[in-house]
Amino acid sequence: MTASPVLGNLFIIAAPSGAGKSSLIRALLEKHPDQSMQVSVSSTTRAPRPGEVQGVHYHFLSTEEFEQRIDAGEFYEWARVFGNYYGTSRKAVESLLAEGKDVFLDIDWQGAQQVREHHPEVRSVFIVPPSLEILEERLRVRGQDSDEVIAERMAKAQAEMSHYHEFDYLLVNDDFNNSLASLEHIVLAQRQKMPHQQIRYSSVLKELLG
Amino acid sequence: MTASPVLGNLFIIAAPSGAGKSSLIRALLEKHPDQSMQVSVSSTTRAPRPGEVQGVHYHFLSTEEFEQRIDAGEFYEWARVFGNYYGTSRKAVESLLAEGKDVFLDIDWQGAQQVREHHPEVRSVFIVPPSLEILEERLRVRGQDSDEVIAERMAKAQAEMSHYHEFDYLLVNDDFNNSLASLEHIVLAQRQKMPHQQIRYSSVLKELLG
Repeated sequence: MTASPVLGNLFIIAAPSGAGKSSLIRALLEKHPDQSMQVSVSSTTRAPRPGEVQGVHYHFLSTEEFEQRIDAGEFYEWARVFGNYYGTSRKAVESLLAEGKDVFLDIDWQGAQQVREHHPEVRSVFIVPPSLEILEERLRVRGQDSDEVIAERMAKAQAEMSHYHEFDYLLVNDDFNNSLASLEHIVLAQRQKMPHQQIRYSSVLKELLG
Repeated sequence: MTASPVLGNLFIIAAPSGAGKSSLIRALLEKHPDQSMQVSVSSTTRAPRPGEVQGVHYHFLSTEEFEQRIDAGEFYEWARVFGNYYGTSRKAVESLLAEGKDVFLDIDWQGAQQVREHHPEVRSVFIVPPSLEILEERLRVRGQDSDEVIAERMAKAQAEMSHYHEFDYLLVNDDFNNSLASLEHIVLAQRQKMPHQQIRYSSVLKELLG
């Protein structure tokens, strides 16, 4: 059966730090080695850390370049955090979608609001931990931080979570494998949606309907 | 983690005869022996055939009862086919949804239009065969029918398929296991949708947001 080229789907995946988002995305990509799913590589003006590769971990840009691209409307969303810019390049996302890839944007609620304006058909997923206790455990594991630093991180996580209801789907990550399966169902169900399937199977439908 | 009771989701699954719908639904239910998915049992005025059980294969009603229920607005959808009534009882569906079951309505495009009016949040899936040749093979397998009978069935299938674009999802059933997986993704993704998850995890969310 011949299939026509079809645009991929765009997904926002947001979560407070400690919800398990990165591990879930990584596991989902590993489960689909056909590379039909990709995480969009963000652009930033912060300096590369040891081991970070241009175009893989980030698109590293100078502040001047970044600001020019903001003015040219080349970002789906961008933000300035501690003096550094971070953003999602529209061109990078659109070229992946044109290849038929499902693209994941790993961004926060503010970025999500900006992307929805440009791309209303985006589907968005919010991931939360099952309790504050578990969130705190996960935030502590990352190092020997003071109670004050942990309290700040908890407050930041709660601020992020207060926007959970703006998202299309909610995952409560109490069981990694269940959450992974749910995330996969969301992505793969979207591929069966009518407008995409109509393009993908246009020749089949033409034959069937005579 | 405590979970709150939540309504199930309602799905319409439609297809021309020969697309493989019944086998797909049966396989999906068998894959979920927890009975979290159920096919709604239709009501009809036609006589039970040998082996058909009241309340299992159909709710068998007299014509008088059926017409009273139509007048009382007790059907999500109904139709008269060759002098017999067929319909979907609103009460039967709603009590399954209230138990948290995902309910499948195995109905045609006309029934689907009626259900969408009553229940706008219904998700609808249309299944087609991969080609007319395969559709004809599948329709022929069912018995030693004349070419004329087959031609009539093909025309009826094409009339049904002409409404495919009214549905939310499209499955092209060229590979049974792929189609089964896709149908499962659609149903299980819907369970992660925000309004339902908000109810299901209301106590978790309350704790997280403090």
